[in-house]
This record gives sequence, C-alpha cells and structure tokens, in this order.
Amino acid sequence: MSGGERPALGVGMVGHAFMGRVHSQAWRSVHAFFDVPYVPVMVAVAGRSRDRVRAAADRLGWASAETDWKALLRRDDIDLIDICTPGDTHAEIAIAALDAGKHVLCEKPLANTVAEAEAMTAAAERAAERGVRAMVAFNYRRVPAIALARRLVADGRLGAIRHVRAQYLQDWLTDPEQPLTWRLQRDKAGSGALGDIGAHIIDAAQFITGERITGVTALTETFVRERPVGAGGGERGPVTVDDAALFLARTTGGAVAAFEATRFATGRKNALRIEINGSKGSLAFDFEAMNELWFHDAALGDAEGGFRRILVTEADHPYAGAWWPPGHLLGYEHTFTHEIADLLSAIAAGTDPSPSFADGLQVQRVLAAVEASAAAGGGWTPVP
Amino acid sequence: MSGGERPALGVGMVGHAFMGRVHSQAWRSVHAFFDVPYVPVMVAVAGRSRDRVRAAADRLGWASAETDWKALLRRDDIDLIDICTPGDTHAEIAIAALDAGKHVLCEKPLANTVAEAEAMTAAAERAAERGVRAMVAFNYRRVPAIALARRLVADGRLGAIRHVRAQYLQDWLTDPEQPLTWRLQRDKAGSGALGDIGAHIIDAAQFITGERITGVTALTETFVRERPVGAGGGERGPVTVDDAALFLARTTGGAVAAFEATRFATGRKNALRIEINGSKGSLAFDFEAMNELWFHDAALGDAEGGFRRILVTEADHPYAGAWWPPGHLLGYEHTFTHEIADLLSAIAAGTDPSPSFADGLQVQRVLAAVEASAAAGGGWTPVP
Amino acid sequence: MSGGERPALGVGMVGHAFMGRVHSQAWRSVHAFFDVPYVPVMVAVAGRSRDRVRAAADRLGWASAETDWKALLRRDDIDLIDICTPGDTHAEIAIAALDAGKHVLCEKPLANTVAEAEAMTAAAERAAERGVRAMVAFNYRRVPAIALARRLVADGRLGAIRHVRAQYLQDWLTDPEQPLTWRLQRDKAGSGALGDIGAHIIDAAQFITGERITGVTALTETFVRERPVGAGGGERGPVTVDDAALFLARTTGGAVAAFEATRFATGRKNALRIEINGSKGSLAFDFEAMNELWFHDAALGDAEGGFRRILVTEADHPYAGAWWPPGHLLGYEHTFTHEIADLLSAIAAGTDPSPSFADGLQVQRVLAAVEASAAAGGGWTPVP
Amino acid sequence: MSGGERPALGVGMVGHAFMGRVHSQAWRSVHAFFDVPYVPVMVAVAGRSRDRVRAAADRLGWASAETDWKALLRRDDIDLIDICTPGDTHAEIAIAALDAGKHVLCEKPLANTVAEAEAMTAAAERAAERGVRAMVAFNYRRVPAIALARRLVADGRLGAIRHVRAQYLQDWLTDPEQPLTWRLQRDKAGSGALGDIGAHIIDAAQFITGERITGVTALTETFVRERPVGAGGGERGPVTVDDAALFLARTTGGAVAAFEATRFATGRKNALRIEINGSKGSLAFDFEAMNELWFHDAALGDAEGGFRRILVTEADHPYAGAWWPPGHLLGYEHTFTHEIADLLSAIAAGTDPSPSFADGLQVQRVLAAVEASAAAGGGWTPVP
Repeated sequence: MSGGERPALGVGMVGHAFMGRVHSQAWRSVHAFFDVPYVPVMVAVAGRSRDRVRAAADRLGWASAETDWKALLRRDDIDLIDICTPGDTHAEIAIAALDAGKHVLCEKPLANTVAEAEAMTAAAERAAERGVRAMVAFNYRRVPAIALARRLVADGRLGAIRHVRAQYLQDWLTDPEQPLTWRLQRDKAGSGALGDIGAHIIDAAQFITGERITGVTALTETFVRERPVGAGGGERGPVTVDDAALFLARTTGGAVAAFEATRFATGRKNALRIEINGSKGSLAFDFEAMNELWFHDAALGDAEGGFRRILVTEADHPYAGAWWPPGHLLGYEHTFTHEIADLLSAIAAGTDPSPSFADGLQVQRVLAAVEASAAAGGGWTPVP
Repeated sequence: MSGGERPALGVGMVGHAFMGRVHSQAWRSVHAFFDVPYVPVMVAVAGRSRDRVRAAADRLGWASAETDWKALLRRDDIDLIDICTPGDTHAEIAIAALDAGKHVLCEKPLANTVAEAEAMTAAAERAAERGVRAMVAFNYRRVPAIALARRLVADGRLGAIRHVRAQYLQDWLTDPEQPLTWRLQRDKAGSGALGDIGAHIIDAAQFITGERITGVTALTETFVRERPVGAGGGERGPVTVDDAALFLARTTGGAVAAFEATRFATGRKNALRIEINGSKGSLAFDFEAMNELWFHDAALGDAEGGFRRILVTEADHPYAGAWWPPGHLLGYEHTFTHEIADLLSAIAAGTDPSPSFADGLQVQRVLAAVEASAAAGGGWTPVP
Repeated sequence: MSGGERPALGVGMVGHAFMGRVHSQAWRSVHAFFDVPYVPVMVAVAGRSRDRVRAAADRLGWASAETDWKALLRRDDIDLIDICTPGDTHAEIAIAALDAGKHVLCEKPLANTVAEAEAMTAAAERAAERGVRAMVAFNYRRVPAIALARRLVADGRLGAIRHVRAQYLQDWLTDPEQPLTWRLQRDKAGSGALGDIGAHIIDAAQFITGERITGVTALTETFVRERPVGAGGGERGPVTVDDAALFLARTTGGAVAAFEATRFATGRKNALRIEINGSKGSLAFDFEAMNELWFHDAALGDAEGGFRRILVTEADHPYAGAWWPPGHLLGYEHTFTHEIADLLSAIAAGTDPSPSFADGLQVQRVLAAVEASAAAGGGWTPVP
Repeated sequence: MSGGERPALGVGMVGHAFMGRVHSQAWRSVHAFFDVPYVPVMVAVAGRSRDRVRAAADRLGWASAETDWKALLRRDDIDLIDICTPGDTHAEIAIAALDAGKHVLCEKPLANTVAEAEAMTAAAERAAERGVRAMVAFNYRRVPAIALARRLVADGRLGAIRHVRAQYLQDWLTDPEQPLTWRLQRDKAGSGALGDIGAHIIDAAQFITGERITGVTALTETFVRERPVGAGGGERGPVTVDDAALFLARTTGGAVAAFEATRFATGRKNALRIEINGSKGSLAFDFEAMNELWFHDAALGDAEGGFRRILVTEADHPYAGAWWPPGHLLGYEHTFTHEIADLLSAIAAGTDPSPSFADGLQVQRVLAAVEASAAAGGGWTPVP
C-alpha cells in the first residue's frame, strides 16, 4: 500500500488482545476512507510471548514482532506508539514513548490512579512543546451519533442542559462461576465497572454537553465477592473491585446527572445509553443501536413534537460520509478508524488531539471522587 | 343500572378535578367488566363551589352534589369515601371518614408528612378491626404490565434482584412562564416532583421487587426558582418545591437502585420507566407504552436471548382478560377501574386492600429520607 | 345521569357480544368527556335469548331488554338504533330502522354483498331527506393518531402520495383446532380476513390519503381448510372463507398500494399497520402502539431527518384533549366514544356523518373487486 | 501481510466504484478475522480511466492497476476475478474469466436478462468440473441476523411458513431533479428498483425460508418519467425503468408472499425489511437495524409470548463470533467479508459456493416473471 505523495508514518503497537485487534483494523483501513495527511505503516507489534506476538503480527498485519515494548521506542521507523495494554502499564510506556519523541495513542482509562495520570499529562505537555502528540482513546466520542449529539448541543439546539442520565450496562459477570481475571483485581485494573465502562460515560457526557462534573455522591457494590481462581479446582479468591458503580452529579452548567456502570445488567450486552434534556430539546442514544440518534426538538411544538430517530449515516453527518451511502450501517470498529484519522490530522496540524491526556486526567479525577464518596457512604465529594 | 342479587355500595367522592374525573370513569365502568361483589352507586360528590360541584356531578354522573365533604360522612346511603383532593387535606378527611365507619380510597401520596401518614395509618388499623377498609391509590400497580412484572418476579423468573432503575419523567415545567400553582408550593403540595411522581416509582419498584428501600443518598434541584403569580401582571413568587429529585438506594434484598423524578425532561410526557435486572432475567417498562412489558429470560441462552415485547392484553394477563381481545389496548383510566375492582373485592373478603395505608406510610418515609439526604448534601440516610 | 338543558337521545342496541360491550362503554362515557349536543340514554338492548339479553342489559347498563329487535323500532323513547350483529343481518335491520325514522349506527363491514350495501345506502339517502342519519362504524378513523395522520395529509405535509402499505395482522386462527365458528362460514360472514379486518385497512388508507382505490390485483388463501364443528367429537367441516387476503392497488391520485389482511400472522395480535410515503414526507402507524404516530418530514433535511414518534395525547391532537393530560394513554374503546361523539354532533348539525353508508358501500365494492381478482388468478380488476 | 503456511490466492477486481470500495475492504480484512484457507493477495484492479484506476488502486490497496479487464485474465498471479461493474457487463466478463480458469465472484443481479444468466450458469457448470468456482454476491445472506433467521427456520422453529412480507425501501429518487444516470436506463441497468434492490429481497426470502417462488402477480410504476440529462442545461430524457415494483407470490411450501421494492419511500434509507410468519413462530428483520433479529416463539405461550430482539453479536451467532464481544455492532461492509470467507472455504473444499450462479439465474427468472406480469396488467405468471 503506497500513499502517493503523502508521507508515511510508522506505527508500533503494544498489546495484541481485544484492543490490539480493533486498533489494527483501524490502522489498516483509515487510509482507504479518509484523506489522512500520513499513510500509516504497520511496522511492529510488541507482546511478551514470542509465539503469540508473531502469530498476532501475522494475523493482524504487522510487519514485525517484538517481545519488549522498549524495542519499539528504539526504532527509527516508528513514529507513533499505540498502547493497548492493561491500565497498570500505561504510565510507564506512555511517558517513556513521549520522552523518546514518539506520538502516543493510549487506551482508556488513562491510568489506574490520579497520580499516574498527572505524570502522564505532564509528560504530554512536555512533549507537545516539541510537536509530539498524545491522545487518550475514548473511542465513543467518534460514534457518528455521539459526534452529531455534540454538534447539536454546541449549536444551541438543546438550550440550557438540565439533565444527563447515562448508563453503561453489560452482563458478563452475572454468572458467579466466571473466573477471577485481572479485570476483577484492584492492583491491575484500578477499579471494576467504574473505570472500565464508567469512564466512557463520564467522558461521553462531558464531551456532548461541553460541561464538566463538579461533584458527586456515589454508591458501589460487589455482588459476587469470591470467584474461581484459574480453570480447575475449587479454589476461590476475592473480587477486589466494584461490580457496579452508581453516582449522582452536578455540572458546571447547573445540570444534574445520574450515572450507572454495571456488569450485572442481565440481557444488556453493551448498552452505553445517554439521555440529555435541555430547555429546548432532548437527545437519547444507546450504543446497542449505535447508528441512531434520537432528537426531540421542542421548537416543533406539542402537536408535532416527538423524539425522532435520525439514522446517522448521511453525508452531512460526522464521519459517516467517508463510508457508504445512507442507511448502510457502521459498526463498533469504525469509531477507532475515526479516532486515528483525527489523531493523524492533529499531528499534521500541530495541534493537540482531543481527547488529550489532560482530558483523561480529568476523567480520572471524577473516578477518584466517585470512589471516595462511595467509601464515605455517599457524602458529597467535589471533583478538584 | 341494577346489579341483580349483588348488594349496592354507595360512594361519595371528595374533589372533582383531574383525579375526580378519572375516578368517576372507573366507578361508572367497573361493574360492566369485573365480577365485583358490590354494585357501586355514585351517590354524591363534594366540592367547595356550589356551581362547579353541581356541573361536575352532572357531567361525571354523580346523583347529587355537596359543598361540604363532612355532609358525605353523615349520609347513610354512602359506604365509601373516595378522596381526590390535594395532599394537605388527606389526613383530616380520611381519619374522619374511617372513624365514621366509611371505607376510604385515598389518592397518593398518602399525606404531606410522615406524622400525618402515621395518624392515618393508625386510623386505618382501628377501622380494620371493625371491618372498615382503607386503600391508598397507587394506581400504577394496576397497569397490567406492572402486575405481570410483579408476577414474574414473585415466580422467581428474575432470580436475585441486582438492579432497579426507575424514572418518572415529565416536561410540563420547562416553560419558565408556567404559573406558580399550588403544586409548586411546599405548604400545599408537600414536595414537588418527588411526592407527585417520585412516590409512584418508589411504590412501583417496591411492589414489583417485593423488597423495601433501606436507605438513600439524594440530590434535588429547583431549576426555575421564581414563577408568575396569577394570570396578569409581572409579579413573581418563589417556587418552594423541587423540580427534580434524584436518589440512589439499597433494598432489603441487596439490590442497588437509581431513582429520578423530574418535570424538566423535555419531550417526555409521562414516562414512568422502570428496569429491573436479576440474576436470571430482566424486565423493562415505560408507561408511554403502557401495554408492553419487556422481558429478558436468561434461561433461553445467549444465541436466542433478547428482550421480548409482551403485549399485555391476553386473557392470561392480570386484569386484561376482563376487557377486549388480544392486541386491543387499554389506557390510563383502566388502572383506576382495576384498583376499584380490587378494593371492592377486599371489602367483601374482609381483608386489607393493597396498597394499604401502611404501605403509603412506608413510601412517605422514603420521601422524607430523600429530602433529609438532599438537605444534608447527599449523605447516606436510612429509611426507618 | 341528567344533561342539564341538553335534550336526551334514546338509544336501542341490537346485539350484545364483543361489539355490544364496547359500544355500551362508549354510550356510557361519551357525555362525561365530550360536549355532545344530546345526552344519550341507554334505553334498551335486543338479543335472541331472554336470559342472556337480560344479563347483558344488567351488566352493560341498558335499562331494558328485548328479544326482538323490531320491538326497538316501535318504541318512541328510542331515537337511534345501534347495530352490533353479524353482517348478514345488517341490511334488514338498518333499512327497517331508517324507514322507521331512527338514526342508525351500523357495525362494519356495511353488509355481506354489494347489493345489500347498495340497498342500505339508498335507504340512508331516503332517510337523510327527513333528517335521519346513518353511519357505518369504521372506528379506526377515530384513533387520534389516524385522525392526526389525516390532518397532516390534508394539510399537504406529505405532498403527492406515492405509496400506501397497509396490513392488518392477527393470529387467532393459527391453531388448526380452533373451531368452525360463523366467522369462518361464507353465508354468515361474507368473507374471512378480507371483510373482517381487510375492510378496516381499506377504509383507513382511503380516509388518511383522501384518495380512492381504482383497481386491484389480488390473491387469497385458506391455509386450514377443515376445522372442528362444535366442541366434542371429531367432526370437521369446511372453512368457506379466506384465512388471508393480499392485494395490490392503484389510487385516484396515482399512488400504488399493497394491502394484506390475515389471521395467520403468528405473534401479531391486532397489528393494523399503515405506512404512507409522499413526495414531502411519510407516516407510519401500528395499532399495537395506537397512541403513536411516526412522521418523517423531509423538509427537515438529511442531517436532521428521521421518523419521529409523536405521542398523540396532546390537547392539540384530535380527540385527545377531551381526556387526560399528555402522556396518559388512550385505549381501544375510546375510538368508539369518539365515533359516537361525532355521530351525535352530525345529527344535531343536520349533516351526514362520516363515514356514511355510501362510504361503506365503496369499501364493499373494493372487497368485491378483491374477491373477483383472486378468483380470476390475479388479473387487474377495476373498482366501479 | 504473510499467511504462514497457508497458500496465497491472487485477486483481480474489475470496477472500483461503490461496490469496488466495499469489496476491497473485505479482501483487506478477511484474513485477520476468519481462518480462511487462503491468504488473499490484492493483485490488481481494472478500470477504464488510467488516472482513476491508479488512484483507486492506491487508495483501496491494490498492488497494480489495469485499464483492460482482459489483462487480469492473462495474469498468472491472479486466481480469482471479482466483478463489480454494472449488470450489462457481467455475462461477458464472468464467462471469459471462468473459461480462463479463474474463480469468479460476481455482483448481483447476476445479469440483465434470463438469457445472459443462463449462459453464465452454463459457464459456471463447465468450470465447476475443473474445480473453478463461481458465486453471485447476494451479500445480505451474510448479515448475521439473516443467517440466524435461516438457521431458525431450518431447525423447524417456525413450523410451516404461511406468510412472507418483504420490502426494500429507499428514497433517493424522490427529488425529481435527481439526474438520469445509467441506473435509470433499461439498456444498462436491466430494470430499476426491481433488479437493483428487489433482487435482494427475493434472494433473502428464498434463502431464509428454503422455499422457491412459484408464481407472481405484479405491478410496477415510474412516478417521475423524465429527468435531467447531465449537469447543466434544461434537457430531460426518459426514465426507462421502474421506480417501484410490487408483487404478490406463492411459494413451493404453500406460503403467500408480498414483495415491494421502491426508491420513493421518503425517509427510508436502506430498509430491507422481511417478516416471516410460520405456524410455530415468526421472524422480523430490518437492515436499518441490521444487528437485530426479532423472533416470536409461539411455544412460549400467550402469557409470555412476544417478539424478542436478539442482538446478533454473540459468539454462538453466525459470523459474529469472529469479530468483537457481545453488543459491539457490525456494519454493512462485514457482510462482504463474510461472503468472501465463505467463498474461499468453498474453493478450498471443492464445493459450489452459495449462492451459486444457478441461484442467481433463478432470481433472474423471478424478476422476468414480475416484469411480464406487470406488463400484462397483473395476471398470474408462473416462474419456470
């Protein structure tokens, strides 16, 4: 694949599990659909097991494989590091990459603690002075329907925001025999549903409304407190993260908000739902029908008013025009392609990508406030 | 209208506004559709204005009109008092009626304070010893879909309840020029969205799950703090109740719950929504599609699982068989007809109707805890 | 129930099965919600079995019972005859009633044959000269959402109509052991799904569009050709009507249309569905969600376009304002109340009610053309 | 991209417009997600304009570009020809490619006439004897929800099929100023909505039910009969194809069916809708919500029955397990990736791919019968 007159941009990816698979598909596709200023070259992927990283490189289309992520930083043919590993490794890799002059795309949540996120943000700010860019991968901002929601709010179509109600509902932990993986251990995952999926709705709500959360009152719960360790035997270990996190919030604009993240919502598979009520209109979205945005425009009057289902696949819609004709749906992976297209544009333009590491840090502070409030029995906890 | 061998039961109604109109329709209809043990006779309606109460009697089908509700208590041809007035009058009328040996149906919320509700509950308990019955009119329990939801939970189809998320969303206050009616004044209405519509979702959630709320953390907001007084002029007065009330809760069974009641959800007209997730299945309901119950049964397995839309109009469904063939929808008013049918059955059977005044008192205690928590900045507040 | 200064209008009803029950509820309720020019008095109901008609009178609220419908025609206290019997009796009763000077409300389809319908229409025209009115009970016109659909089309909001697709789907015959009732016998019912429910979608489509069907090509099918006769034994008799009827049509305005009526649509209970596409917009309706009208207004442009769900419960909506606040749903029976309110208004105004017997005759002609086309293997058959 | 031990399979594509873009994305992606027996190599793309085909090769990822499709047939490094050109060229290219020993994937409809389709099918049969395979690209069979629908029917879950109602609704011709492109000219496109989108619902209905259409009665319409030729000026030319095609049908299994294809369904963007009613259950699908299959299982009984929304993203669902976790949606392009994965498997297995050219020919015969019936005013027309 050559890119005519456009320069190449070498990419190295760390991690090749779920996130690595989806990022690979985005790197492979972006050039065919978007007029990106660079042609990405999938130079190398890093993983700990030699056999598995080679198989992944083969399958996912990376030209070479490394067993040490630091090797990626030493290569001159790599301009950007894409971090797809668990949260406890983000800070070390991202800071080293930025300091080595590599652009960074980092999966969310930015880190497992506010302190780590602060260090990463400082590194990003240092790097930006040298034209090196850092982005945190809140991919749901690039769902066309969510980008359209943002546009409608920014255009004043909702008026003053009164209510946000956001839920991220999954159900994969309802089975008590589901094993005790790293995602259920605080030292590796930071938190449970809160950081894994709650972080997404915090970012989405703030992105769409353009407002920040100023404080919270929260409650968390772990329904199944012990789970099987490993495959066989009867051994069980403690679950040290939340199964569900609920919190109420206020925003800089005077809205009130209700958030809920859970892995125990039986029958809900990936229901990132957000509804926003403003003085002039309302919006509703559910990722399980990700090509639809529901918009109520109060200006139409009572007799003709109603939530309308905008199928966000028109040429006029964010990102959608790059793909297929109207009514031909996009899927989950496209959000990553959009993210990468925007990142490449920001690098070329010499501007900070959005969401920046500073945005990721702010989300981290909300997560920390939620945990603090829940630990204190729900008292009001401001977000610094 | 004669009832064959069945005895008549004389009814007197206090109040003839919105609730009076809908109760009248229920009293007029119940005998034609349900095998009730009494034939209700619509004896008299009471209201303060002579002209208006006479016109209401005429229109709504009451044989006579009174300008003093106490007159209804003195009449021998009246066996039951139906209270359709604002909350600040409930305690006086209900206690007097019960003490006078009249059965009572009382609109919700039971009262404006816990103290009033306690006095009313004590009166109901005294009356019950003499075979006189009292019911609080949480009519949404008699939506066939909600009654079916209760049946599915009681039959164990949901397993252990993990999550309740309940919202009651209206939008009639979004216009800041909406006048300052009694519903926006604390001394008359007790509270705002909380008591008016929040009480319904508290009752519905507890009814369906069979569990009680044990504590809350809450947040309330008044978005528009002054509104026009009367029709003309520019005078404005303070709104002294909440526009929106949000709270998180825990239940006796270990579930966590999120509640939200608001009159500022632009585009939502009467969206009493409730979703319940259990270890074996889930339910979802929205009053704006009141004939539908959505049920996910995890026992069907991943490949065939999904929320199914049960159209609750079958002969096997609660209440529905009394009306029309499958697929012929019921409306709002039918919930009151069902309520009255159940009340008449309880009177004949000599059992306490459900929901009882004690149930109404318990809801009042939750309302009081919500207000206390919100006033204290969201701290955890147990429900006694 | 007294009506102040408004005159009474005595009603006699023939038949007291399903349609009799729902008409009774409408007669009982109309005065409380609509400013009708007459106060209906439920004078007498007629039925063949003395015991059953007395029980029905008792239950449904009729002051007296007759075993011969002709007795109703002789009574001076009866001004209007409401015909709720099977189609093979409509012509005789309606013509006799009109000739006796009684207004007539007649259930649909108007008759079992075009010839009968023509005779009835002639009788209605004779009667109209004397101020006696006749209406055929296509109640679905009075669903608020369908009346709103008509209003939008009449206001030009859809532009030129291009497509009509109308379905009436039920499933109560899918069980082959369902017995051979009169509805499955041609001599009593006229036809099967075609006349019973197909007639409704023909009327609804013509009503909403304001256009007439000019010709059809059709196909009918009887899936289960023999069914049990009576309760016990193994005897079976032939089904002599269609189980399903499908036809394509053209309209006076140049639209093309697809119609389908069936009692074999497993899982569809009362799905009267109609979708209309015009050059400027589209409408969609399903009776199983009868309070909703879906409207796409192309004038909103591609980026904001979409079908919106209008909850037809606003004060500005046809009929709805007479009942409850926004979002408080109406049900099946309300369509009959609306129908009667309009009939009483037409009688007082001295105008022909809509739909008239002439409208019913025209529907009958479409039904006849469908049967002729189906019998001839689908050839194009004009509607006279 | 290397494939380990798996052999490479060289691909040459003819045409690089809409279909070429989506096929390229599928060729590029298939190896990363499916265990295909060959590693596809994107060798060359052919197009008439040198500049445009080179730009397309660059953008879409083809290693080289040709201006004559015959050059692809002469190259030894090409094993398979992918035909993405208009229908009037399919026969010549496909027959030449098969005779040259190249496997063929051909876009639908197979051809513009039955005669061409017959010649192509004969060529495919000749080629099959030499292990050379041919497939027609009815991609909608590879929507996971449609493949699941087929599985449910094949497993007997619907019982005897009674009804099929299938619609393919688009709206891009509602604007009368839309220019007169080749798709509106009979000599190039064969037919209008009928062949373009009607062919898809014919194939989908036959695929899901496993039944064939035996005869039809039809009606077609061209609403806008003249359109602008080229960009400027006022010149207009005649539209020589149908804007809408409607037909009724019977199937080999005794079902009745209604089909409708139109480009004038304002507000419907790509609504390929199909509903199937059987004696034991029903299915409903709409491509505008392509990840959902609605299933009614009558075995669940009346009290619990209802259409359930199966989100077809589970590991147990056809194709879906190859991609992302449950609830992470797929889009339009994935259907092509699935199609190619199945084609590669068939080539390796030495079996005929499905749908074969013979399947495409049978669809062509249905299209011809529809046109014949419509031309004859709707008379019954058997499908040979």
